Amino acid sequence: MREKGQGQQTIKLKNPIGVAAAASVVGPKEGEGPLRKDFDFISDDAYFKEKTWEGAESAMLRQAFTLACDKAKLPPSSLNYIFSGDLLNQCVGSSYALRDTGVPFFGIFGACSTMAEALSLAAMTIDGGFADTCAAATCSHFCTAERQFRLPLEYGGQRTPTAQWTVTGAGAVILKDGGPAPYLTHVTTGKIVDAGVTDANNMGAAMAPAAYDTISAHFADTGRTPSDYDAIVTGDLGRIGQDILRELFLGDGVDLGLRYMDCGILIYSGKAQDTHAGGSGCGCGASVLAGHLLRGMTDGRWPRLLFCATGALMSTTMSQQGESIPGICHAVVLDMNPDN
Amino acid sequence: MREKGQGQQTIKLKNPIGVAAAASVVGPKEGEGPLRKDFDFISDDAYFKEKTWEGAESAMLRQAFTLACDKAKLPPSSLNYIFSGDLLNQCVGSSYALRDTGVPFFGIFGACSTMAEALSLAAMTIDGGFADTCAAATCSHFCTAERQFRLPLEYGGQRTPTAQWTVTGAGAVILKDGGPAPYLTHVTTGKIVDAGVTDANNMGAAMAPAAYDTISAHFADTGRTPSDYDAIVTGDLGRIGQDILRELFLGDGVDLGLRYMDCGILIYSGKAQDTHAGGSGCGCGASVLAGHLLRGMTDGRWPRLLFCATGALMSTTMSQQGESIPGICHAVVLDMNPDN
Repeated sequence: MREKGQGQQTIKLKNPIGVAAAASVVGPKEGEGPLRKDFDFISDDAYFKEKTWEGAESAMLRQAFTLACDKAKLPPSSLNYIFSGDLLNQCVGSSYALRDTGVPFFGIFGACSTMAEALSLAAMTIDGGFADTCAAATCSHFCTAERQFRLPLEYGGQRTPTAQWTVTGAGAVILKDGGPAPYLTHVTTGKIVDAGVTDANNMGAAMAPAAYDTISAHFADTGRTPSDYDAIVTGDLGRIGQDILRELFLGDGVDLGLRYMDCGILIYSGKAQDTHAGGSGCGCGASVLAGHLLRGMTDGRWPRLLFCATGALMSTTMSQQGESIPGICHAVVLDMNPDN
Repeated sequence: MREKGQGQQTIKLKNPIGVAAAASVVGPKEGEGPLRKDFDFISDDAYFKEKTWEGAESAMLRQAFTLACDKAKLPPSSLNYIFSGDLLNQCVGSSYALRDTGVPFFGIFGACSTMAEALSLAAMTIDGGFADTCAAATCSHFCTAERQFRLPLEYGGQRTPTAQWTVTGAGAVILKDGGPAPYLTHVTTGKIVDAGVTDANNMGAAMAPAAYDTISAHFADTGRTPSDYDAIVTGDLGRIGQDILRELFLGDGVDLGLRYMDCGILIYSGKAQDTHAGGSGCGCGASVLAGHLLRGMTDGRWPRLLFCATGALMSTTMSQQGESIPGICHAVVLDMNPDN
C-alpha cells in the first residue's frame, strides 16, 4: 500500500474498523423497487411530513441517522464525529438534518461519491486514534434535485434516454473501533478525472472514467484483481456508465463479470419504473449500501465487497458556461473476514 | 484532550505537523487594503484573465495552490491529498481549480470555516500516518458570491450596515510531517450551532455563537485560557460578530482583549473601502492566514495562535423558506514552539 510520499492512492487501515450499524430510509418510488425488503423505512409520503422538499430531504437523513444510532445502541451525542454532505447548494440537506445532534461535524462535498468519501474519512479518523465512533451519512431527494439541477417539477419536461432518476433516499453508517464485521479495511481516494463530457444529462459517461481510474489504482496498489472480490459495486453510474466502465476494463483485458453491479441499476425496475439509465444521487449508493449491500454481506452473500461511489463535481452554472464535467470516485473495501 | 468516546471536541496531535509553505492570492480591492504587503500575489484584474467570474475564482485558487507547492519545493503531484472546498454551488471553485492536479482529492464543505476544516483534516491525516504532505486550500470571489447569494452585480443594490463584503482571495497551506514551524498542534472540531438568526445580511450574528461554542470547548478541553495565546483569530465574524463574541465571553468573565482579532476586520480599511461590517468568504480567513498571520508567526510576532474559522451553513433556498442560519466554527492551534 502507500509508501509515504509515493503518490499511491490506497491506504490499508491498521486497526479493525467495524460497522456498528447502518440504516436506510427511502421514498415511495424506491419502496416500490426491487430492493424494497432491504430498506429500514419506506415513507409513503415524499414530503416526509414536512412542508418543503428540502425539509423532507433533511427529515429523511435525520431519520436514517437516528435509526442507525438506535441500532448501534449509541446515543447520537456519544458519537465523536459526523461526516456528511449532499448535493443541495451549500449542502443544506445534511447541515439542517444534523444541526441539533451536538456532535462535532465535518461537512464534505463529493457529489454522489459522498458516502464513500464519508466512510473513508470516518475510518481514517478512527484508525488514526482520534475517535472511537463516527457516522457517515448522506441523502438525496428527487424533487430537490430536479428543481435545483434541471427544471421545475410542474413543467413535466421530457427526459433523455441517458438521464438518471435522483433517488429519494438516505443512508447512515456508524463505524466503530474494533468491530463488529464487516470491517472497513482499505481506502482508495479518487483523483478528479475530467474526460471532457459536457452533457449534463449523461452523468454516467462523465463519471465512468473516474471509476475506472480509482478502481484501477486500487488493484495496482493492493495487487488484487476483480476475482478477489465477491462484489464490486459502483454508486450510480447507471446503465450507460456501467457499460463504459466494463468496456474500459475490457480494454485492459479485465472482465469485471457478474460480480460488478451498480446501485443505480439495482434500486429500480428500469422499464417498469421509467427511470431511463437508472438511479443517481448521494442517496442512491448510500441507501443501497446501508440496506441491500451490508445485509448481503452479513448474510454471507458477499464476504468481501469493493464499494466505489462516483460523483460529478459540476454545477448548473458551469454547465451553462459550456464547461465539461469533472468526475471523482472514492472506494472502500468492506470485508467480513479481513484475515483471509 | 479527548478520551475516546467522551464527546470532547479537541484532539492533540501526537506528531509534529509543520507548515511547509503557504500562499495567498487576492483581487484588486484586497490589494488596496491594509494587508497588501502580506499577500503573495495581487491581481490587478478581478477576472484573473478568465472569461467568467467562476473561472476567475478557480484560476485564483489554482495560482495559490501552485505557488504554495512551489514555495514548499514540492511538485504538486507529489502531495498525498488535497482538502478543499468553497462557497459556490457544488463547490465548483475548488473542483475546477484542482481537477488537473492528479492528487487524491477530498472535497469538503464548511462555508467560510473551510480553511480551518481543511487544516484539521489534513493534519489528522498526516498525524494518523496516512500521508506525508497534504494541502489545505480554499477561495472566494466577490462577484461569484454576490450573484449566487444576493443580487446581480449590475443591479447595484443597497447593502445593509450589517452586510459583509466577500473577499476575492484564495489561500493554500501545505502541511508536512515533521515540520518546519509553525506546527499545527491541536484540532477543535465544531458542532453545528443554530442561534435562530434569520437575517442573511447579518452573518456575523449568525456565526458568533458557533465561535463561542468551539472556542469555549477548546479552552475547556485543553485547560488553556486566552492568555495562553498570542493571537486568537476568527475567520470572518466582522464587526458585529466580533462584538457579539467578545460579549459572550465577557458573560463568562473572560476578556479576550487585544489578542483577539478577526480576519474580516483586518483585511479592509472599513470606512475608506466601504465594506460595512467587514470581509467574509472562505477566502477571507484563508488569504489572511496564508499571508498575514503565518508571516507574523515566523516573524516572531505571534508565537502561538488559535485560528478559528466560522461558517454559515445556509443557502438562499433555506433563507427564502424562512429558515434560521446554522453556524459552525472549526479551530486549530498553530505554534512556533510546541514544547513551551
